[in-house]
Amino acid sequence: MKILLTNDDGINVKGLTTLRESIKEIADVIVVAPETEQSAVGHAITLSDPLRVREVERNGEFIGYAVNGTPADCVKIAVRAILKNPPDMVISGINLGANIATNVIYSGTVSAATEGTILGIPSIAISLATFINPDFSFAANFAKRLALTTHENGLPEGTLLNVNVPNIASDKIKGVVFTRQGSSRFREEFDKRIDPRGHTYYWQGGEMLFFDEDSDADSGAIKSDMVSVTPIHYDLTDHKFLEKLKNWKIK
Amino acid sequence: MKILLTNDDGINVKGLTTLRESIKEIADVIVVAPETEQSAVGHAITLSDPLRVREVERNGEFIGYAVNGTPADCVKIAVRAILKNPPDMVISGINLGANIATNVIYSGTVSAATEGTILGIPSIAISLATFINPDFSFAANFAKRLALTTHENGLPEGTLLNVNVPNIASDKIKGVVFTRQGSSRFREEFDKRIDPRGHTYYWQGGEMLFFDEDSDADSGAIKSDMVSVTPIHYDLTDHKFLEKLKNWKIK
Repeated sequence: MKILLTNDDGINVKGLTTLRESIKEIADVIVVAPETEQSAVGHAITLSDPLRVREVERNGEFIGYAVNGTPADCVKIAVRAILKNPPDMVISGINLGANIATNVIYSGTVSAATEGTILGIPSIAISLATFINPDFSFAANFAKRLALTTHENGLPEGTLLNVNVPNIASDKIKGVVFTRQGSSRFREEFDKRIDPRGHTYYWQGGEMLFFDEDSDADSGAIKSDMVSVTPIHYDLTDHKFLEKLKNWKIK
Repeated sequence: MKILLTNDDGINVKGLTTLRESIKEIADVIVVAPETEQSAVGHAITLSDPLRVREVERNGEFIGYAVNGTPADCVKIAVRAILKNPPDMVISGINLGANIATNVIYSGTVSAATEGTILGIPSIAISLATFINPDFSFAANFAKRLALTTHENGLPEGTLLNVNVPNIASDKIKGVVFTRQGSSRFREEFDKRIDPRGHTYYWQGGEMLFFDEDSDADSGAIKSDMVSVTPIHYDLTDHKFLEKLKNWKIK
């Protein structure tokens, strides 16, 4: 099996190197990842700037390529320009911070796996639900096991797996649950400041509020110390409302 | 009615100014739009750079604010920092180029309407299916009529309308159809070049291939000279596969 690894935090971060060590045990691994952090880029692709690709070695070993683009760019350029043959799987992560509920749509980590899926390659996004004191070892091990199971069972066309792992010791994890995407809202705060030249500017920030505490939702599963695996697709049609909408008369 | 207008092509483009003239006939209009073109930014938000807001006048009339950010940034900062009260509706567009089938996930235009929806505001994205010789007049008029109908009927929580209009004379348009998101794939091409300093770089480009020609899909409707209205939501869960996935055993 040949597996392409990428992420949105950049090619040199611990989440990716730990993932690589684990996935190497089951597959030939190639890394194509952003040069720099690309968090909250959503599904951006780079059309108006040139993309550059740099070969990356670590301790004398060739590990892959750094790209001055987004996670989606990395997967596209890997499959269409860098690699001779498409990989058997794309794994994106391990992200520092959960990608659950509504914030999935802002996620560069998930967008890389989505891009793999669009290209017809079974894909997994994996994130660790913490921003501080991360321990990627359980998540890296789980990614390996899930990759094997996914390779065995296959995924439907157009569907990827979005995995979130709680940041607790492996013996504290209560199990694995297959979930739906929960509901949440970002409570935005714009911090208004004046720069040294007297001009106004804003820092965007805030806090994510989660509304699904049941463990059948991704956010609830994490809260219950369980690993969450959510099947995600990119048919955004609200099929239920479509039937009602067909009765609208537009004057 | 108070309506917030935005787009992803920048505050000064014809698609937005034509939309504004039309929507002014039915509502108080405020524009909060990117300073510069933000195409293919997906649902990106700007967290690591400061956001600046500039008041914009045209022919002595105050029309709104330009923001050095993405379409999603514009809607967030408008609702949370610029406007005293949330608008009754968000309309994003009129985009130059269709936002149909799989390329909806790359769309800054749709992401702005999605952001409005997340903030609890009924939202519409509208695009003209051409890159050359655009005539925005029918689309602007249709946006006005759809805004009135949407205001009257309401939208379900979490659902927005993604509208695509063919670029033909209004008497050639064969009707309005409520559609699902079609299926498509971008056939990527990476144009590899050598810069004057001898370094390799790539331009990303290619062509969109559409697989749905039925007029119940957005791509098919446009091809049949019809206006396409697709209800879009951001629950990305593949509920159908979730039931099968629950039988997976991960070793």
